[in-house]
Amino acid sequence: MCELLGMDCNTPTDILFSFTGFSQRGGRTGPHGDGWGLAFFEGRAVRAFLDASPCAESPLASFVCSHAIKTMMAVSHIRQKTRGRVKLANTHPFVRELWGRAWVFAHNGTVKGLPRVKTGRFVPMGDTDSERAFCALMNRVARRFPTQPEDPAALWGYIAKVAAEIGRRGTFNFILANGDALFARCDTKLCFVERRAPFGRATLKDQEVSVDFGAVTTPRDRVAVVATAPLTVDEVWTHGEPGTLWVFRKGRLAATLRSRA
Amino acid sequence: MCELLGMDCNTPTDILFSFTGFSQRGGRTGPHGDGWGLAFFEGRAVRAFLDASPCAESPLASFVCSHAIKTMMAVSHIRQKTRGRVKLANTHPFVRELWGRAWVFAHNGTVKGLPRVKTGRFVPMGDTDSERAFCALMNRVARRFPTQPEDPAALWGYIAKVAAEIGRRGTFNFILANGDALFARCDTKLCFVERRAPFGRATLKDQEVSVDFGAVTTPRDRVAVVATAPLTVDEVWTHGEPGTLWVFRKGRLAATLRSRA
Repeated sequence: MCELLGMDCNTPTDILFSFTGFSQRGGRTGPHGDGWGLAFFEGRAVRAFLDASPCAESPLASFVCSHAIKTMMAVSHIRQKTRGRVKLANTHPFVRELWGRAWVFAHNGTVKGLPRVKTGRFVPMGDTDSERAFCALMNRVARRFPTQPEDPAALWGYIAKVAAEIGRRGTFNFILANGDALFARCDTKLCFVERRAPFGRATLKDQEVSVDFGAVTTPRDRVAVVATAPLTVDEVWTHGEPGTLWVFRKGRLAATLRSRA
Repeated sequence: MCELLGMDCNTPTDILFSFTGFSQRGGRTGPHGDGWGLAFFEGRAVRAFLDASPCAESPLASFVCSHAIKTMMAVSHIRQKTRGRVKLANTHPFVRELWGRAWVFAHNGTVKGLPRVKTGRFVPMGDTDSERAFCALMNRVARRFPTQPEDPAALWGYIAKVAAEIGRRGTFNFILANGDALFARCDTKLCFVERRAPFGRATLKDQEVSVDFGAVTTPRDRVAVVATAPLTVDEVWTHGEPGTLWVFRKGRLAATLRSRA
């Protein structure tokens, strides 16, 4: 299995604190040593750092940790492979373009029977069930909405529905982001924390690091962090009910949708 | 204007030597300080390092230069903007997926009147003429060849034809790569060198660095390097005739096509 990390903010924020703890699970405090990736949005575009080596030992991960890249939205994944060998094409998060926006996807779980599911114009580059599930989801969204719908709720509801259908085929925890909204589906295991004023102190679970968010934020800042398992020991994380799709926008939970067939 | 760099090999090779000289033109020996990008293929997938800051001062460029990432195919670009402000979405090379392959594109020149050209399902994320030209080209290729054609020459000829059409609208030097072939179109300025046994010594033009390729290669290795201007002072670079499309495969020039309307 793998672990997921997502961040959505209303002001450019660096993901260093969360990523520092998370990255330790990639081969040090956790067994997820089969590659990692971290994608940062800048508007509609994204920069993805991907590496097929263990995150905890990756020079690229060290580089990312030593340069506080600020972003409004980020998605990360550390992989412990179930299907598909260790190679770049199998490394999450996966990226595709739709409506002139980058869409980024990372998955935790295994989904079966996907070769029979149409992916249309979105063709997998690698051989994971995860990328195929992403392509199938993107194909459905692109067919239903040839352009970005004016009503965001229509899109959100449709993603919840399609995710429920794909989710019937196995375990389908995922983070999907397009620079406008961050979608997080809890199938078996996912949680989030919203950080907002008054900001307190938080201490990582996986490394002896703590930060006083009050000293590095303004009262208007809002940051939502989603992860497979809580990253800090002294914050209140909300655990998802199986079959839930959370939608985050501008650093807050904008919707909680049922995503179960 | 901008500068282009491409590499195509028959064995995994690092692009450090060429990129070291090239990167100096990004704000030090050349004026191209409006961002840079470097994309490395691994099979059908690609890793792109992108930065909107000058290449010669970029910590990410230093990282890339200090870690010899080996690849069979790479595309790089340093930008001196003509259209579109400095931001990630306007930073070359641009990436899209077709047929389960990453396609990577970098452009030197300015193309006009593109808003009237259809881009179909490939929608620009930024506001450069370059990304729009890439999307228009990809749309034509995807419509003509819904799947990868068995005869590669059919694809090559079609790309030469469409590039000629788009090229009528301005200056259209580009490098396009999909992991299988690297296409380089010379409109006004582009050159290449093929390195093969017996390997000699080469000295960079932009920095006091030289390398003895004989010491770091095997006799079967082949590497083709394409660039806007020669990167070395002691190798024979072939300069392109205006309206030529070169196709490189496995480190050698596979075809020279006419690409002029």
